Amino acid sequence: MTGDPDADATPDATPDAGTEQSAREEELIERVVMSFDACQSPRLRELMVALTRHVHGFIRETRLTQTEWGTAIDFLTRAGSITDDKRQEFILLSDVLGASMQTIAVNNEAYEHATESTVRGPFFVEGSPEIPLGGDMSFGAAGQPCWVEGTVIDTDGRPVADAHVEMWEADEDGLYDVQYADGRTSARAHLRTDENGAYRFWGITPTPYPIPNDGPVGELLRAVGRSPYRASHLHFLVRATGYRELVTHIFVAGDDLLGKDSVFGVKDSLVKEFVEQRAGTPTPDGRVVDGTWSRTRFDIVLAPAGA
Amino acid sequence: MTGDPDADATPDATPDAGTEQSAREEELIERVVMSFDACQSPRLRELMVALTRHVHGFIRETRLTQTEWGTAIDFLTRAGSITDDKRQEFILLSDVLGASMQTIAVNNEAYEHATESTVRGPFFVEGSPEIPLGGDMSFGAAGQPCWVEGTVIDTDGRPVADAHVEMWEADEDGLYDVQYADGRTSARAHLRTDENGAYRFWGITPTPYPIPNDGPVGELLRAVGRSPYRASHLHFLVRATGYRELVTHIFVAGDDLLGKDSVFGVKDSLVKEFVEQRAGTPTPDGRVVDGTWSRTRFDIVLAPAGA
Ligand SMILES: [Fe+2]
Ligand SMILES: [Fe+2]
Repeated sequence: MTGDPDADATPDATPDAGTEQSAREEELIERVVMSFDACQSPRLRELMVALTRHVHGFIRETRLTQTEWGTAIDFLTRAGSITDDKRQEFILLSDVLGASMQTIAVNNEAYEHATESTVRGPFFVEGSPEIPLGGDMSFGAAGQPCWVEGTVIDTDGRPVADAHVEMWEADEDGLYDVQYADGRTSARAHLRTDENGAYRFWGITPTPYPIPNDGPVGELLRAVGRSPYRASHLHFLVRATGYRELVTHIFVAGDDLLGKDSVFGVKDSLVKEFVEQRAGTPTPDGRVVDGTWSRTRFDIVLAPAGA
Repeated sequence: MTGDPDADATPDATPDAGTEQSAREEELIERVVMSFDACQSPRLRELMVALTRHVHGFIRETRLTQTEWGTAIDFLTRAGSITDDKRQEFILLSDVLGASMQTIAVNNEAYEHATESTVRGPFFVEGSPEIPLGGDMSFGAAGQPCWVEGTVIDTDGRPVADAHVEMWEADEDGLYDVQYADGRTSARAHLRTDENGAYRFWGITPTPYPIPNDGPVGELLRAVGRSPYRASHLHFLVRATGYRELVTHIFVAGDDLLGKDSVFGVKDSLVKEFVEQRAGTPTPDGRVVDGTWSRTRFDIVLAPAGA
């Protein structure tokens, strides 16, 4: 069209469809962004503008088809439909996209050598039983006994005495107590550190379990060839006055699932040796264990509050 | 608790804390991206990777708090709960974020001077009654009579004979026929263009209506200070063999809502003069109208199929 040899002036003779199309798409984004101008809350406005830019960026970059858009609407609809008081498919979706972990990450910024955080998960319950140091948190949950010990210190190396430590985990059938219909409380407890910040307890050796996968998130995982299994882990929540609350897990060194945890909770610093002990090996507290047991150590470093 | 008097010293500012934090956040994104490596469908993989990058980008840029994340989960949960066969809160959400319009935009790229597309909306129904040229699509719907005429041509200026033209609109109470419980069919019809590509019909002058706003999307609009109203419009869908299907509206010049349509459907090229006619003004087809009426013209240009 513009084969004119003296087309030296402006390159506008060709109706550049690409540029015109781009301009329309960008103009739409700006209109949506401006629609939030009257928002009274600067933070809500910031969130909506960022959401708008990312949603539109996604559609433009992928050239999302109408059919794909329809599939996304259908996915959300089905996720909404399976969600109730006991099942939360939107949190699962956030989890499998790593969005829950990223939210944890931006709210628990790296601080010196403080222990890293990971997802809280859906199974923490306030009001767990208190156990003494060296007590048993399993309360009859099925699994191999596991001796866990460590200290809670701060980033200056000072022991944190009387820290409140919550622990919870799945039993060897992959279920938390709250997943049973009988109202049991097991594999869940809290304790307080001694004057040296030390703690110790009996739990059970962590085993893998799948996140609920009979809904749209499970379908998505299958469609992309991902496993619903979480790497084996033991949850901790540590609270102490003057320190940042720590929500974390420890993972089992050597677990095949470490590299493919379905919710991306694994951090190298949280992978611990769980050393298997032969049947008959004397226990640290003289308890008689019927069969094998394991032991591990988890030394916890708390960041200062506000860090 | 750890009342060390030296604790007045501010924590050492680790110069590379920001960098370390950034590295952790980016490493997480890469782990999520890699989790889609085994996906058999390259397109699904592309979509999930783009989704991951945008979701994480949103969380990182806004430093989304845990509370805000919780609010988002709650919003989606409530949207899921209000959604049923007749109510689709996720589509409304897509609409008010301009995501529906952006999807339309990327799937109906600008093509020379072809008529622009806009959202289909939730009220199109296949199987509308056919009317002859000059017929009345209102079927008793309340509203001011409106004479609409135009031609359908292609981008080379050739008339498109026998094009299938669907029209649908809300009545003057702001409701589409399908929103009434009595099963009526009104303000909805289709016709075929003549051998010159011309068409003409009686409809009703478009009036504004709000999108459903008694759910979480309505709450969001109120929180950001936006109106749920759509600019007045008349829907068209045009199909003709060899041409790209056109889904569009025309809007009413002078409508106060043109600049703040709740779903961002307005495009300048789709705004038409609806010229009000005094009572008694002779109509183009000799119909006797009881009171005022209006008239407008909409000339349609179809892009070639595959454009
Ligand atoms: Fe867990
Ligand atoms: Fe409409």
